[in-house]
Amino acid sequence: MPHIRFKPADITVEASEGASLLEAARRAGYILQSECGGQGICRRCKVRLIEGDVFISGEQNLTPAEQDENIVLACIARVVDDAEIEIPQESELKLTAADLKPELTPGENPGKEIVSFGLKIDPAVSRVNITIPDPTLQNNASDFDRVVATLQKAGVDTPFHADLKILQTLPRVTASSKGGLDLLIHSQADSNHILSFDMGCDPIYGLALDIGTTTLFSRLIDLESGEVIAEASDYNSQIPCGGDIIHRIVYAAKPDGLKHLRDLVIGTANSLIDELLKKADISANQIVACVAAGNTTMQHLFLGLDPKTIREEPYVPVMTHFPQLTAAETELNILPNAPVYMTPSVASYVGGDITAGLLAAGVHRSDKLTLYVDLGTNGEIALGNSDWLTACACSAGPAFEGSGVKCGTRAVSGGIDRVNLNSAGQLEFSTIGGGSPCGICGSGMIDLLAQLRATRRITARGKFNQEADPQRIRKIGTKSEIVLVRGTEEKGSADIVVTEPDLDNLIRTKGAIFAGIMTLLKGVGLKASEIERVVIAGSFGRYLDIENAIRIGMLPDLPLERFEYIGNGSLRGAGLALLSRKLWEELEEISRMITYFELSSWQGYMDEFMASLFLPHTDLSLFPSVK
Amino acid sequence: MPHIRFKPADITVEASEGASLLEAARRAGYILQSECGGQGICRRCKVRLIEGDVFISGEQNLTPAEQDENIVLACIARVVDDAEIEIPQESELKLTAADLKPELTPGENPGKEIVSFGLKIDPAVSRVNITIPDPTLQNNASDFDRVVATLQKAGVDTPFHADLKILQTLPRVTASSKGGLDLLIHSQADSNHILSFDMGCDPIYGLALDIGTTTLFSRLIDLESGEVIAEASDYNSQIPCGGDIIHRIVYAAKPDGLKHLRDLVIGTANSLIDELLKKADISANQIVACVAAGNTTMQHLFLGLDPKTIREEPYVPVMTHFPQLTAAETELNILPNAPVYMTPSVASYVGGDITAGLLAAGVHRSDKLTLYVDLGTNGEIALGNSDWLTACACSAGPAFEGSGVKCGTRAVSGGIDRVNLNSAGQLEFSTIGGGSPCGICGSGMIDLLAQLRATRRITARGKFNQEADPQRIRKIGTKSEIVLVRGTEEKGSADIVVTEPDLDNLIRTKGAIFAGIMTLLKGVGLKASEIERVVIAGSFGRYLDIENAIRIGMLPDLPLERFEYIGNGSLRGAGLALLSRKLWEELEEISRMITYFELSSWQGYMDEFMASLFLPHTDLSLFPSVK
Repeated sequence: MPHIRFKPADITVEASEGASLLEAARRAGYILQSECGGQGICRRCKVRLIEGDVFISGEQNLTPAEQDENIVLACIARVVDDAEIEIPQESELKLTAADLKPELTPGENPGKEIVSFGLKIDPAVSRVNITIPDPTLQNNASDFDRVVATLQKAGVDTPFHADLKILQTLPRVTASSKGGLDLLIHSQADSNHILSFDMGCDPIYGLALDIGTTTLFSRLIDLESGEVIAEASDYNSQIPCGGDIIHRIVYAAKPDGLKHLRDLVIGTANSLIDELLKKADISANQIVACVAAGNTTMQHLFLGLDPKTIREEPYVPVMTHFPQLTAAETELNILPNAPVYMTPSVASYVGGDITAGLLAAGVHRSDKLTLYVDLGTNGEIALGNSDWLTACACSAGPAFEGSGVKCGTRAVSGGIDRVNLNSAGQLEFSTIGGGSPCGICGSGMIDLLAQLRATRRITARGKFNQEADPQRIRKIGTKSEIVLVRGTEEKGSADIVVTEPDLDNLIRTKGAIFAGIMTLLKGVGLKASEIERVVIAGSFGRYLDIENAIRIGMLPDLPLERFEYIGNGSLRGAGLALLSRKLWEELEEISRMITYFELSSWQGYMDEFMASLFLPHTDLSLFPSVK
Repeated sequence: MPHIRFKPADITVEASEGASLLEAARRAGYILQSECGGQGICRRCKVRLIEGDVFISGEQNLTPAEQDENIVLACIARVVDDAEIEIPQESELKLTAADLKPELTPGENPGKEIVSFGLKIDPAVSRVNITIPDPTLQNNASDFDRVVATLQKAGVDTPFHADLKILQTLPRVTASSKGGLDLLIHSQADSNHILSFDMGCDPIYGLALDIGTTTLFSRLIDLESGEVIAEASDYNSQIPCGGDIIHRIVYAAKPDGLKHLRDLVIGTANSLIDELLKKADISANQIVACVAAGNTTMQHLFLGLDPKTIREEPYVPVMTHFPQLTAAETELNILPNAPVYMTPSVASYVGGDITAGLLAAGVHRSDKLTLYVDLGTNGEIALGNSDWLTACACSAGPAFEGSGVKCGTRAVSGGIDRVNLNSAGQLEFSTIGGGSPCGICGSGMIDLLAQLRATRRITARGKFNQEADPQRIRKIGTKSEIVLVRGTEEKGSADIVVTEPDLDNLIRTKGAIFAGIMTLLKGVGLKASEIERVVIAGSFGRYLDIENAIRIGMLPDLPLERFEYIGNGSLRGAGLALLSRKLWEELEEISRMITYFELSSWQGYMDEFMASLFLPHTDLSLFPSVK
């Protein structure tokens, strides 16, 4: 097999003929950017051929300069012989620990939150200490029957089940315990499942998991105190198979694609579990329950369910309400018979992440008309209160995560997250982590869009007005772009620019979100001004400037005090459902009470969308503060 | 490793130093008789050392003649070097197909039996054909939700569960089925478990299993017609580890002993399944449910539950009511997620074989006072009717299976099963299979005992009266014996005799059974004459002469028409419970309604036993017809 040597790390891997450099690089430890899932479209996976030869299996659309430099797209460059490849920094998907820190309020305590809901900590899995009477000739009921009778006396409902492997431990336990048993019991609606007869006195934990398209977040929660013991997060290692769910679904249709995607995401989840175990210094068997949230596609891929029909009209998932599974079945490396609950989803594009977020935000427990906006890789919106709930998914691409935006980036170190551009032409910006800029991330784009419009550098339709800033705005061919940061030759860095197609993309995305909000409002006959509370959730909400988001017409024009940022609502909701059976029931209720608006077939949505493709909107009466 | 060559088959196996010849022989395909489980006590595993050397790790108690012939006990003869071993025919546990044919009335049909009970065939696992509506943009419920909604419309109760592996098949099935699905559903009290989404139209079967100490019996039953499709049976391959449950329990306490016993019995069960599959020409996945009956110890060993406490006062098993298990857990090679139901037992010595037998006999459905006697390796007795049930186990050894009887044998080919000895000294006998006699089996012993007493060859206490038959009865030392068949030198066969210790053993066994019956009767304040029906079940009941059994005082002196032979009640009951959820419930009820008499601690039992150690009894008024 040919040998491929990758620089700068100087790692050589064997690769079979016809394999892509993307795949070979992955095996060398390089995860390359690949929004399109290796289809030669997004052109993020550029690498340089230093030596040897590759076969290009598609159209690369490279510039003459790139061609001169022997740049190739790793996804369609295929191995034919030994080769040496250089991976430019910008092609690599990199992150620092800080980038992925779960977005939590410091000291957040799900246990206390539950108490604030007027509930008590009451997880589905709990430890029960009993003392069983010794058998006598008069009462020689079996060991198991004496356990069950003791539990019944203690008020635990029957019937009781246990796996054979657990039952096999019972004689050993009763022989050595002198009657005292520390059971681990999983209580369900109709039955109780004994997970262990000798759990001992070590603390028991639950795992809350948010399976994001881009990132997986996890929390280890003490099931008795309700405290967060440790947190861990990492990129979803499916990313090289496609930047968004559509590309993942396409990838899943390849031979073994679904299995590969499942292995990847389970691999990421298990590496997070490893990290949590190390941080908390506990054993895997002490994690006795899991609640996993995620969008419908991610939940399907996590479980190995074919997501194919999610992207085909009429957009039907395999499941929205998942039967309860075990850790062994899902292949999570925790107590093998621990239950794994998947948060219920509503439809193909309103998933278990949204239901969990609504639970965390307490929307279903409040009289207030609440708008819930999740701005992750996809944009989902819910509207309602304790009486009714509606939800929809915006057909917005992940532009705010940098996809389809020339110098766009995720919220990584060096991403420009805040921009201040005054009419005098002064530009101030900050980057995540404070280092030198590598691109512009979602919140920075919203700031920029708002300020380009406020300073009349762009029109209401997002076209550049070169005269407003001739120093920064330049025309290349028929399209204009604005230069935010000039590249320096010594560093070999390129200019950071925003182009008219970028603006168009961003406006379509913000327009889709606002059109979704308006469609839900009109669907229930309400006006935007009647919204009493707006909850912003999702990965880039942390950096979002609400005022600018209103100025560009992405969020409704409401007093700022009505807005709040909930952080990772999906993860928070998973943690709450983990700690309270009542809240799990409420989560199920939420999923069933939501009326789903399938926007692609919803009359009037397209009109709302067209009207939203302006900054801020064609109907300025909706944005009195901007006007 | 030393090589051990076994004759007559000329098979050589490697054996590690210190291994027993019993174990080495097993690996060469020879299963030797070993009542005591390899403890050097029963002296049934005699083999001849032809060449080489072995180390004897205990006391063999061989006769000088045996010593001259280089006879050793295989269980305590340990490998030290290469050796050649001859296995005498009488040491081998052999059987012909006829020996093990399940004892069924030809054409027995559990389906018809269920109808005769006024019930319908209604197994826990059934195939359900549904057509699910295509999804539309207006009704885009998930695939699983549409399946569930269709089942609900068809009247099948919720909730529905399914294993992840099964759920993963759903998209493929719905894509190819055009809406028509053949589901396989396991209906339980509180939920339904979908075992398959695409069972197809092939017939589905259930497995009824009787796990006997000596023999495993199996039946393949069509779950829709209720017909028996095939039957198979074989010796329990645990036999070399001990002839009765006590020796098995002792063996289980050795390092890895329990695992070894479980592997052996599961191995036997799986070989029966293979045979059934071949006979019926079906695939393993078509066997979708199993009901397994057996005595408490066998059920424990089958499941790998430590039986240790069963033989220690207060005789407490690990379980009597077994949670439902899956085929995968139990390691039966049928549909992996098929439910495996273990019939409920009552106590350590009244097991799931007795509850199943009572179900088959319909004792719980009848007003008639019924005595149920199971004469297998152990003797269990139940008494009652539809209002109440009592049961006990006789502390009788398996003398009727040949254990502790010098020339005793199980009901194998060549076993003397009928004896007719008149006072003129003429002896007639028949053997199982009609060949030359190899020993005397249970039914033959009962005949013999009755006729030795009737012809005054023995006293009421079982002592020989040599003068009554000086030709056959001879004295060796202080003990007498009767010669039934003289050995012939040319055939190298020994005399077939019955000794005074044998008689003593048999009288103790029959006495234990009768004392058990009397104890149950007295416990409920009834007399033997009030018994309206006697059901005989178990492996040697087929050959039993009821009149002789009454004459020796083993069974109560009732008109012959009150007796009936049910065959393998345990297997029959398992088959019925397999076909009818109602009967499974009745089985559970039977197990809970039985009052168990622990004879070892039952006041008065010992008196009853002592009074029964006469032929027929000290109280002759109990046996008016014999008197």
